[in-house]
Amino acid sequence: MAQLLKVQNFNVSSDGIAAGPDEHQTLDNPFGLPGAERLFSWAGATASWPNRTDPGGSRGLDDYLTRDFTHNIGAEIMGRNKFGHQRGPWLDHQWRGWWGDEPPFRTPVFVMTHHLRPSYSLADTTFHFVDGDPATVLAQAREAAQGKDVRLGGGVSTIRQFLDADLIDTLHVAVAPVEFGAGRSLWKSPDELLDRYHLDVVPSPSGITHHLFWRR
Amino acid sequence: MAQLLKVQNFNVSSDGIAAGPDEHQTLDNPFGLPGAERLFSWAGATASWPNRTDPGGSRGLDDYLTRDFTHNIGAEIMGRNKFGHQRGPWLDHQWRGWWGDEPPFRTPVFVMTHHLRPSYSLADTTFHFVDGDPATVLAQAREAAQGKDVRLGGGVSTIRQFLDADLIDTLHVAVAPVEFGAGRSLWKSPDELLDRYHLDVVPSPSGITHHLFWRR
Repeated sequence: MAQLLKVQNFNVSSDGIAAGPDEHQTLDNPFGLPGAERLFSWAGATASWPNRTDPGGSRGLDDYLTRDFTHNIGAEIMGRNKFGHQRGPWLDHQWRGWWGDEPPFRTPVFVMTHHLRPSYSLADTTFHFVDGDPATVLAQAREAAQGKDVRLGGGVSTIRQFLDADLIDTLHVAVAPVEFGAGRSLWKSPDELLDRYHLDVVPSPSGITHHLFWRR
Repeated sequence: MAQLLKVQNFNVSSDGIAAGPDEHQTLDNPFGLPGAERLFSWAGATASWPNRTDPGGSRGLDDYLTRDFTHNIGAEIMGRNKFGHQRGPWLDHQWRGWWGDEPPFRTPVFVMTHHLRPSYSLADTTFHFVDGDPATVLAQAREAAQGKDVRLGGGVSTIRQFLDADLIDTLHVAVAPVEFGAGRSLWKSPDELLDRYHLDVVPSPSGITHHLFWRR
């Protein structure tokens, strides 16, 4: 079985926006976008959301998407801006990601950056910092995944790089019924990908429209 | 986390029929229903279908349902008619289920029958034959599942028994766009369950309408 590269639970607005302009990202506002929770609150409402602390939550369609997050995943690749809000050389090595002492990845994670720093582990997650083109980083992640698939975590510019290099096998993009008008945009329209991907458009009772792409 | 009892990938026609009349089940016709493949062909078209032998298959909505089949499942319960076509005392102990030498369950499987026989293993699956009411069999399966969830595999009369005993936590029922008119029916309408369950109705581009129930 081939090792897939998969985008999962990536959230955008109906106008394709996943984050605010680069300079708007801060420690208190990871997405740099006022109202960003309207993009991802659907996931938090499900029973399988990894950060859930109480026993409730829905177990319908949206829950299938959140509980698939770890299915057969052996590594993640993410851009530096998903990892943190610092830019340029690492001034604060104490910064170890947004996720606290138990990151939800539980696999090796490859953070793409021109500014290297030593690897470290938090619980079951190990962060590696790598400077390479998408194909090179994917090869590293595949080896670390030991036969399992690799998740491409985002953000927008990282996904665009891997799309441009034609390295992504499947994408799940959750489109929320909100418009932001400005910010970092994944696409003008999901139709841009139809020359390369099949697409199932699946409206959820939560108001989200799940877009499920897989290679033709 | 509670151990759920889950029905997954259970296929019925638009008039609720999952199998032919009891006496129509034979070795060559496990469902006892001409055209039964129209109920489950959607699953065989997906990349994650356990019996798939070639590398193709869709990776859209339907594939989320098939690849969820094994997610956190530690045991299965099934009725005797799902296990085989024999009725009454076991005349043929050579019969070891419909699934060949590598059954797709890969967990302990509890077959409900008044006619006991010794347990046996095929690859990663062990079949146990148990005579008890639904609550008793569920307790056995939960213990065997070692903290994971339990799948209730069917058929119709087994699911009805567990619904009557109010033991099922979630159900995924795939409704196919075909009518059979006669046979063993799960329901007159999915609405019968709405007093006890939430329901997401999710039409798939394949023509199947997935019904996802979870307890209120």
